Order: sequence, then C-alpha cells, then structure tokens
Amino acid sequence: MKVLVVGATGAIGSAVAQTLAERGHEVIRAGRTRGDLQVDITSNASVEALYAAVGRVDAIVSAAGGLFFGPLNEMRPADFNVGLQDKLLGQVRLALLGQHVLTDGGSITLTTGIVADEPIRQGANATAVNAAVEGFVRGAAIELPRGIRINVVSPTVLTESLPLYGSFFPGFESVSAAKAAQAYVRSVEGPQTGRVYRVWQ
Amino acid sequence: MKVLVVGATGAIGSAVAQTLAERGHEVIRAGRTRGDLQVDITSNASVEALYAAVGRVDAIVSAAGGLFFGPLNEMRPADFNVGLQDKLLGQVRLALLGQHVLTDGGSITLTTGIVADEPIRQGANATAVNAAVEGFVRGAAIELPRGIRINVVSPTVLTESLPLYGSFFPGFESVSAAKAAQAYVRSVEGPQTGRVYRVWQ
Repeated sequence: MKVLVVGATGAIGSAVAQTLAERGHEVIRAGRTRGDLQVDITSNASVEALYAAVGRVDAIVSAAGGLFFGPLNEMRPADFNVGLQDKLLGQVRLALLGQHVLTDGGSITLTTGIVADEPIRQGANATAVNAAVEGFVRGAAIELPRGIRINVVSPTVLTESLPLYGSFFPGFESVSAAKAAQAYVRSVEGPQTGRVYRVWQ
Repeated sequence: MKVLVVGATGAIGSAVAQTLAERGHEVIRAGRTRGDLQVDITSNASVEALYAAVGRVDAIVSAAGGLFFGPLNEMRPADFNVGLQDKLLGQVRLALLGQHVLTDGGSITLTTGIVADEPIRQGANATAVNAAVEGFVRGAAIELPRGIRINVVSPTVLTESLPLYGSFFPGFESVSAAKAAQAYVRSVEGPQTGRVYRVWQ
C-alpha cells in the first residue's frame, strides 16, 4: 500500500513509518519541519498542498498534534484552544480533507493517548482533546463512503519518553514505540473501523 | 444555594432552572438573548461580565452550546470548529473562569448528550464535542481546589424535542426535560465529582 504518515519524525510516527516500510509498504513521511514533505496541520492550505503533492493514497496515518499542559487554576480559554486547534482540529482536518484522496477501502488512523481515559495533573486539555478525537472517529466511522475506514490508536506513555514525561505518569506502565506501532499496522492492514486501539501495556 | 443557570431558556435549561427553584434555590437565569442576564459563552469578556454581575455563587450549571450538524463527506474544518468554539470551548470557558467565583465546595455542571457515545448521521462534530466536554470534566475534577466539584449530564433526546430531532434518533428512547433535570439536582446537591450522569431512559 501507499501510506502517508504525518508526524513521521516524532517518537511514535518514526516507529510507525519504519514498521510499515519493513512490511513492504510505500511510506511517505511528512513532518512539521523534517521528513519527505512538510505540513502544518493547523492550516487548510498546507494540508491541501500535502495531499496534492502525494496524490491518491491507500492509508493516512497521523501521529501529530500539540496539546496544552498547565495547572487548571491558571488555565485560560486561549490556552485550552491550543489543543483544540492543533491535536484535535489538526487531526480532524487531515481526516476531513484526506477522505477525498483515499482509494476505495482506504483507511485513516489517528492518535490519542491513555490520558483520554486516565487524567493526569495539568492534563485537562489533553484529556478533552484525546477524548474528542476518539469521539470524532466513532462519529466519522459510520459515515465514511467507499469502504473507507477510520480508527485511532491510544498509547500509554512511551518507554522512550519516560525521561521527559515519566514524572507525569506515576505507576503507569510504559510501552515501546515499536509495540505501539503494531496497533497502527492493525488499523492500516486490518478490516475494522471506528475502533480505539488501546496500547496500555 | 445561589445557582447560576446558563442556557436557562432552552429546553433543558428551563426545566433545570424551574426544578432548582422549586427546591428552594436562588436561581439566576442567563441566556443568549433572554433570561435575567445575557451572555455569549464564546466571549471571555461576556462571560467575565456575567460573573461580575452575579458575584459569588454556589453552583454554575451550563445547558448551553451550539454544534455543527452535516454530512461528513461535505464537512470542512471550519464547520467542525463551530462546535469546538461554542459547545466545547464555551462550556470550558464557563468552567475555567467560573472556578474563581465559586464558593468553597461549590459545583460546576456541564451538558453533553447521548451522541457522545452513540453516534448519529451527520453528527461527527456532536460526538467529538460531547466526548471532549466529558473528557474535560474527568481532567478538571482531579485538579479543582477548595472542594469544588465538576460533573456533566448526558441526556438522550428529549421528548419535547422529538418533533424537531426525532428523525435523527431512530429507536432511541426519549426522556422528559423534567426527568433530565433530576440529574442536575444530583450534581448540584450531591457529593460526587468527575461523574457523567447518563439520562438515557
């Protein structure tokens, strides 16, 4: 398959791109500043230019999107909107515009995280945004035409990210990026739609 | 208690305001164009003016917020952002700014809907937004100071709304606005936090 991976230079995206390439797929890597192609997922024009450059694809994988972290008692609506515009609307944009460049039976795979279900300190924006992306996938799965599927992968904290983020996840098990990447393989190559693949251990 | 109800002239909000008033609470009704006070929940200035006008309150109830409905294959990112800015960020704004005007042990109660869990046609934005509000409540509940609680009520389609919206909910049971209002009483007067009260039958 021809697979576009957005966020392909991040911790998860690079593992997903590598795993899919090893399985024989033609992988196009897009990143904000690196990769084969650059894209700003907060911009319609940038995402449309990306899709025009890659042409028809069999699968779109997103491992992209920023969130706002900070104490709730100091949080402002504009802070909260950061995650809405980036990880939420950015991934929704990839899906809404991407549905039109997918081949029949193609797939979209988005990324959330365990914080959708298990809140952490300073993470109200992250929980809301991740829950919203999962909600979008539930809603979109019943409407996508031409056999197009949509799923989402919710990893726990990555083992590779523990030095940076481990203190926010006391008692959480971590998984390797390579293990999380397997859930993307299930979504891209498997038959399911509207699923949340939770990789929590 | 002194209770501010935002969206107090809508189908749910008016039932909540009436029920709380009948239980002896001092109810202040805010609406977009009607009620005791007017507020635009998409505006920081408007929400701050509302809170300045009402002073300290024991409970804030929101039954407000617009969504985008439309077919997924024609949906644009700007359409999707309508619900993000209105029912999602609008209710989050009421909570983030409202935490500072609540008395110790006060409460915030937001509103979602069954579509958070049960997608309907043309409802991808509604499912995402409602799921996000529930995620925000999970995340905020663990951080609110001074014993302040936050919950959300998820009603199914209202019996009163069946003439308008019934065709979107085939086979769904409806509940009366008066029945849904009881869940807001549980949230305002009860001890729980971080809860989703599902009123689905």
